[in-house]
Amino acid sequence: MDILSILNWRYAAKRMNGQEVPQEKINKILDSIQLSVSSIGLQPYNVLVIKDKELREKIRPIAFNQPQIVEGSHLLVFAAWDNVTPERLEKYFDRIAAERHVHKDSLTTLRAYGENILKNSEEHNFNWAARQAYIALGTAVIAAAAEKVDATPMEGFNNQELDNLLGLADLGLKSVSLLPLGYRDAENDWLVNLPKVRTAKEDLFITDEALELRTA
Amino acid sequence: MDILSILNWRYAAKRMNGQEVPQEKINKILDSIQLSVSSIGLQPYNVLVIKDKELREKIRPIAFNQPQIVEGSHLLVFAAWDNVTPERLEKYFDRIAAERHVHKDSLTTLRAYGENILKNSEEHNFNWAARQAYIALGTAVIAAAAEKVDATPMEGFNNQELDNLLGLADLGLKSVSLLPLGYRDAENDWLVNLPKVRTAKEDLFITDEALELRTA
Repeated sequence: MDILSILNWRYAAKRMNGQEVPQEKINKILDSIQLSVSSIGLQPYNVLVIKDKELREKIRPIAFNQPQIVEGSHLLVFAAWDNVTPERLEKYFDRIAAERHVHKDSLTTLRAYGENILKNSEEHNFNWAARQAYIALGTAVIAAAAEKVDATPMEGFNNQELDNLLGLADLGLKSVSLLPLGYRDAENDWLVNLPKVRTAKEDLFITDEALELRTA
Repeated sequence: MDILSILNWRYAAKRMNGQEVPQEKINKILDSIQLSVSSIGLQPYNVLVIKDKELREKIRPIAFNQPQIVEGSHLLVFAAWDNVTPERLEKYFDRIAAERHVHKDSLTTLRAYGENILKNSEEHNFNWAARQAYIALGTAVIAAAAEKVDATPMEGFNNQELDNLLGLADLGLKSVSLLPLGYRDAENDWLVNLPKVRTAKEDLFITDEALELRTA
């Protein structure tokens, strides 16, 4: 698997063909999410794995009727923690202590980070949690593409309505993005043959030399 | 390349050994960033690629003296757009029109998205841009690990001081994360042999069945 081939193969499929993604591929995508990078390793989000078609039919109108919601076989909902609480942090510290066979009180650096996080506003922490969830979203897209599974990241949905439908507030969560998983319907997808458009390297990257020229 | 092996191999190296990452590997990591997923494909961020050691020595104290800043051979600075402006959107629409050989005025759906983005507050758009930058950050980490290059995502730095040092405000940018690239110093890194700690699957993922139980 070459990462560039994978990234070049993928695109945000606008139509999917209804074919079911095998459970073993779904598991691999979920394993990748579980292994995703996150700040201090906290993973401040949950991922809903929705296969039930009836429920996806209910979600579709909340997402501007985008067909992939139901034309895929699974829908992942990335939901960030609405805030970081002492309880959530303690649960994490307990897990580290157990898995690394150390006493919880010895995690002084992590605890200091935790204290700082708790000083931030709820909104700040939610935005921070959402950023971490986006790392997982990007990881899931790569993991799916490595399995030749199409995945279409979506922000175009009514977050509040989806949160209400799924009862996310009770779980201390807010939805931030959707990821239908399925297979592209190449015949009916207007996007499939269009060239990928990306920022030119000279516009995306700023090198030492360019910085020097600017500050000289 | 198996994505799970890659994710299991990587960790956030706390010490690096100073060995230089070859340019071809750096290029592959940058290519991956360029191909990263982003909302409507806008890529609302820049990535600074800093090899100059003198500059990295200046950045180190701004990042709580974390040694990887100088023990790696390159430092990537992910900097999100401080806002989305009509000019930035037009530049993107121009590029799509040119690369897909269509007239700019035909991009009605994208233009509608753009109009909506422009209605949001500067802070909202910065947070949105930062999320997209985090997808690129996560992609870069995977691309690096695929090349057996270590990469340590960092949020622990004084954003304002770094922005001042690099003159980012003039570019309409705000730094959001750092990524030193190098090679782990296994002998001196306390973290290298510790087990990875991750949220258990039953805590991270919420299935249809669990949702049904909750809403039944």
